[in-house]
Amino acid sequence: MGSEEKIISWICRFTVISAFFLIGFIIDLMRCIPQVLNAFGTGWFARPTTVNHGQVSKSFLRDFLDEMQAENIKHHLRKFTKLPHLAGSQQNLDLAEKIRSEWMEFGLDSVELVPYDVLLSYPNKTSPNYISIVDQLGNEIFNTSLAEPVPEGYEDVTDIVPPYSAFSAKGQPEDELVYVNYGRTEDFFKLERELGINCSGKIVIARYGKIFRGNKVKNAMLAGAKGIVLFSDPADYCADGVEPYPDGWNLPGGGAQRGNVLNLNGAGDPLTPGYPAKEYTYRSSLEDGVGIPKIPVHPIGYHDAVHLLQHMGGPLPPDNWKGALNISYRIGPGFVDGFNQNKVRMNIYTNNQVTRIYNVIGWIRGAVEPDRYVILGGHRDAWVFGGIDPISGAAVVHENDKARVLQERAVAYINADSAIEGMYTLRVDCTPSLHTLVYDITKKVSSPEEGEEGMTLYQSWHKRDNSTERDAPWISKLGSGSDFEAYFIRLGIASGRARYTKNRKTERYSSYPVYHSVYETYEIVERFYDPSFRRLEAVARVRGGLIFSLADSMVLPLDCVEYAMSLTKYAESIYQLAAKHPAAMQQYSVSFDSLFSAVGNFTVAARDFHQRLDKLDTSNALAVRMVNDQLMYLERAFTDPLGLPGRPFYRHIIFAPSSHNKYAGESFPGIYDALFDIENAADPQKAWDEVKRQISIAAFTVNAAAETLKPVVS
Amino acid sequence: MGSEEKIISWICRFTVISAFFLIGFIIDLMRCIPQVLNAFGTGWFARPTTVNHGQVSKSFLRDFLDEMQAENIKHHLRKFTKLPHLAGSQQNLDLAEKIRSEWMEFGLDSVELVPYDVLLSYPNKTSPNYISIVDQLGNEIFNTSLAEPVPEGYEDVTDIVPPYSAFSAKGQPEDELVYVNYGRTEDFFKLERELGINCSGKIVIARYGKIFRGNKVKNAMLAGAKGIVLFSDPADYCADGVEPYPDGWNLPGGGAQRGNVLNLNGAGDPLTPGYPAKEYTYRSSLEDGVGIPKIPVHPIGYHDAVHLLQHMGGPLPPDNWKGALNISYRIGPGFVDGFNQNKVRMNIYTNNQVTRIYNVIGWIRGAVEPDRYVILGGHRDAWVFGGIDPISGAAVVHENDKARVLQERAVAYINADSAIEGMYTLRVDCTPSLHTLVYDITKKVSSPEEGEEGMTLYQSWHKRDNSTERDAPWISKLGSGSDFEAYFIRLGIASGRARYTKNRKTERYSSYPVYHSVYETYEIVERFYDPSFRRLEAVARVRGGLIFSLADSMVLPLDCVEYAMSLTKYAESIYQLAAKHPAAMQQYSVSFDSLFSAVGNFTVAARDFHQRLDKLDTSNALAVRMVNDQLMYLERAFTDPLGLPGRPFYRHIIFAPSSHNKYAGESFPGIYDALFDIENAADPQKAWDEVKRQISIAAFTVNAAAETLKPVVS
Repeated sequence: MGSEEKIISWICRFTVISAFFLIGFIIDLMRCIPQVLNAFGTGWFARPTTVNHGQVSKSFLRDFLDEMQAENIKHHLRKFTKLPHLAGSQQNLDLAEKIRSEWMEFGLDSVELVPYDVLLSYPNKTSPNYISIVDQLGNEIFNTSLAEPVPEGYEDVTDIVPPYSAFSAKGQPEDELVYVNYGRTEDFFKLERELGINCSGKIVIARYGKIFRGNKVKNAMLAGAKGIVLFSDPADYCADGVEPYPDGWNLPGGGAQRGNVLNLNGAGDPLTPGYPAKEYTYRSSLEDGVGIPKIPVHPIGYHDAVHLLQHMGGPLPPDNWKGALNISYRIGPGFVDGFNQNKVRMNIYTNNQVTRIYNVIGWIRGAVEPDRYVILGGHRDAWVFGGIDPISGAAVVHENDKARVLQERAVAYINADSAIEGMYTLRVDCTPSLHTLVYDITKKVSSPEEGEEGMTLYQSWHKRDNSTERDAPWISKLGSGSDFEAYFIRLGIASGRARYTKNRKTERYSSYPVYHSVYETYEIVERFYDPSFRRLEAVARVRGGLIFSLADSMVLPLDCVEYAMSLTKYAESIYQLAAKHPAAMQQYSVSFDSLFSAVGNFTVAARDFHQRLDKLDTSNALAVRMVNDQLMYLERAFTDPLGLPGRPFYRHIIFAPSSHNKYAGESFPGIYDALFDIENAADPQKAWDEVKRQISIAAFTVNAAAETLKPVVS
Repeated sequence: MGSEEKIISWICRFTVISAFFLIGFIIDLMRCIPQVLNAFGTGWFARPTTVNHGQVSKSFLRDFLDEMQAENIKHHLRKFTKLPHLAGSQQNLDLAEKIRSEWMEFGLDSVELVPYDVLLSYPNKTSPNYISIVDQLGNEIFNTSLAEPVPEGYEDVTDIVPPYSAFSAKGQPEDELVYVNYGRTEDFFKLERELGINCSGKIVIARYGKIFRGNKVKNAMLAGAKGIVLFSDPADYCADGVEPYPDGWNLPGGGAQRGNVLNLNGAGDPLTPGYPAKEYTYRSSLEDGVGIPKIPVHPIGYHDAVHLLQHMGGPLPPDNWKGALNISYRIGPGFVDGFNQNKVRMNIYTNNQVTRIYNVIGWIRGAVEPDRYVILGGHRDAWVFGGIDPISGAAVVHENDKARVLQERAVAYINADSAIEGMYTLRVDCTPSLHTLVYDITKKVSSPEEGEEGMTLYQSWHKRDNSTERDAPWISKLGSGSDFEAYFIRLGIASGRARYTKNRKTERYSSYPVYHSVYETYEIVERFYDPSFRRLEAVARVRGGLIFSLADSMVLPLDCVEYAMSLTKYAESIYQLAAKHPAAMQQYSVSFDSLFSAVGNFTVAARDFHQRLDKLDTSNALAVRMVNDQLMYLERAFTDPLGLPGRPFYRHIIFAPSSHNKYAGESFPGIYDALFDIENAADPQKAWDEVKRQISIAAFTVNAAAETLKPVVS
């Protein structure tokens, strides 16, 4: 095939390989390329044709989208999951080099391998991790499982990493157990303020769900706990009327959720915060590493959890803490009949070690503005074998050697991680300026759902998940938990992600049931999530369409008016949060006028900008370049080098991962955090002063961003 | 005259008005426009002709330079110094508006007024500041002068602000006096470590000179002093064989040096660090203000200083601490005959107050790349009436509303502050990439010196101040103490300044003798510094030539190879500093290899970049734009959003004001500070770890900057 077809096929393949929530244990070879950073020069696709002066050519986009076919996706996936297991540095390098040659064959203009030495975390092969119940003589009378029952067909696979919490501290703490529900900030508040239970010096047990597990660990540490056990409750990891895998897609009782428990706050590699983890980079000691828990952490399944929970004393749990284990348990600490001298012991031997990994970066050269990059990226490691998911989402991407270059030249970043987590409809999380493009592209893609022949993805999505604010499909704010964090929150590069999801209004389980367990297999997708592979096809088309349109439109398809609308909504929403304290607002003279005024200025500047754009002479290459620069740098203008209080790597003033749940995006996070729990502030004057300071920072930032949209000469 | 001539004349006038070290008390009207920010779009000057595809047209530059004539400069200065005194907010606004209309008349495309509410500091009109000697009964037996003797011709001028230290704390501390020489870090080390004198709880007296006065105050506070008196010693403020003003240009015994004593470290306005001091901006309390001294500070002349110094006990000063007061004094504390119950009392009533000021911003539109700005700026307030010099150099410029815009679009900043501080030769401080342009321009300007007819300024300068490293005139690193700090050190915008100076090798006095005294008059320039006004003419031509060339060259005249040469020199120099500790270097495995390697990478990238530049198709507007973007953003690439340790607003990794003397520029300041006094570190392991960390940050930054110079597609 010709060079262009090859590259289209490559994009298809790339969006496909990542268009898959289960990379499972047989493809942990991916560990060696945890970040595939793919930069597309704007305009490349225009190379074979004449230069495209308007928006991206519709028929060209259509051809591109049509290239992505369910059959190919299935074929690529099958092939990909057959790749052999490789471990160790030399093999990692061999694999990275194999990928490089393959990409060169596919017609990419250049492919680089970039090594990094990052902190990873592995269970100790000779001393497995587990939790025990010990009696008064010190005998372990119950131990949790060392591994999950392996699903059919995978019995012969070796080196399946058992469930563990990556970056857990080592240790064998032993004490009474306290149940802390989801381990959220509000759960610990309830324990301390209402139930009068002190977790200090105890081991706590929290159920998974609602928030990022690292936040649970942080909260436990703040409460003084000396260890934390995490378990999957059926209430959170089983859908109603669905069988456990392999008969259905629910989590079996022996399954447990792996995952990292760091609190990096965007710092990247824990030992080299803010800088790339190169060979020459200074590494702090493990003790000084950023966000590494100081206490042991371990995940278990619900079959094991039952045993631990039955050994607790203290009061009964509040009704909404009970979960679905269908046993009668208490919160602890204290003892109940028959177990009153028993304690819980954690046995954790996980090791942190600096390990060499490789980043593969492929380039497709652009013809018109070759110094502008549209990045398609995602980690391609499987978490199963090393808890390295956090690293790829952090260390490698963050302050990459090319950070300065990307800050100058990156137009947008499209994430290519897990593409399916449910079977209901599309889910898109993106920066507001991408809203319009997302809607436009989904109007060009067919619905993958049976019985919706002739309907577009947009129509299907709209019907299933309408926005609460307007007549259009729901689009979420970007939180974190994946690779875009560094690009978006730290560098201020417009970012977006798309995947297929569950019904967020009716399906109340967390994430998807088998999340990060050994049951994330190829078969679960083929049998349950997407037998026709048309949902994955739809996601691949949305991602590919975004990349293609961003790379091939003469004027960047970013919409500042959408940003203005979102800012208006966020300002109103944060004001409403503060307005819950009318007396304090008055007493401390707290006003949001400056923020509303700034948002007003931004709205006018955005509208005027797009009006000028309508009259742009697109035959004037420099004039086009100037507006493209304004569009590209708008997202940058929302970043503040000073960062958020206590979170120097979270620099975006409009969006940040919530301080209480990294997975959730918070708007105006500086103000939000200042307002959090303010009714219990020790020094209300100081607390409200901080609210005022954050309002003025937000107002300044929005005003400064508005300035960048005004005509380039006053 | 036509529009172009008007604008050339305006630039001439602007460089002229600032081309003057003495703005003195009769032009304190300037207080209302402490920062004149002038942005030039690249290419404007090409507007009347056809587009200029190569370097700036030589004959056009020549015409431009010839427009600046000594006679005009003299005329403008005279006229300017006749402007009436104005004070108070309404009058300030009136004046700013008057300047706006004048600039519009001069043909500027637009002029804006931007208000700021910044913290200023003024003496209390009803309670003057002074220092007393008090006897054991509490009687003030000697008081320092309340004002300087007014020079002839200025007797009728009212509202001359007396000498004071702006932003001093209020207070009346009373105690023994300790002499601390220049109040440098090493002076306090000597007192504590060798002389065994503790300054804690004492009042200290330091002579002016060697370092920025704010650093003296900070050192005194660190030593526990409860007040500090600053005096001008003839050894530091009188040149040999020169009479005091008005018979010569030396400082009279009654003259004293005003000036701010803040330690802002680039924070801007003390109450709104990092953000513009707008009406809506949150202001911290004075107690929490950045860099405001917590102790009283006051400046005196040498006639008064003699009295205080005669009252001291303790050991005799070391020989090199004695200065030139020609009295026998001791260091203190303690008492000598006849004074043994006497103490010193400071009486300081200075007030800090938030005051509205105006920034006037004028624009000349560019024709080719109107979204690129060459900034000509400088404060135009006189310090004499309000110590507002620090504010203009900080609060207003720093994080101006346009900070985001400038970061995206500013090509360079040329400072237009004091233009003459001596009568020997040219002094240029600039970023390395401007070296070549500075040399080129000075080759087109005539020497202003008598007896050097036919010689260029370059030849004259070269002859008088050859570089120690090569056969070319000496160019200094940028330190701080003026407006460029925010542009260069904080935002990473290439910056430069030029002025006429003394012979730095033979004239050992600090600054110039009458610096910040009432004797900075128009007459001192006309009679002594530059009777022909040809030195000011030469400086105006250098400044104007820089602005003109930066604004009108098709390819930006910035030289990356010069940057590489400077980096090589700085790396070698910081390595030599560390190499003074060979045992520790070995013990803690400290290596500079990564830094040398990064500098090597940068050198190759810079050379290759300029080789590609030679082959550039300058008829391809986008191709030219791309290399200009690389040139423009090179300086940005050296900034790190995390800033230097403890100095978050100093973001440039290659240059920062010295931590021990704000006036001096330090290269690789992070490494330098980590190495400072390391032989006395309490925890050597930790101290050398910090050196290693700083080396790796520097290596990363230089590597990342090198990446930006490589071809835009890998």
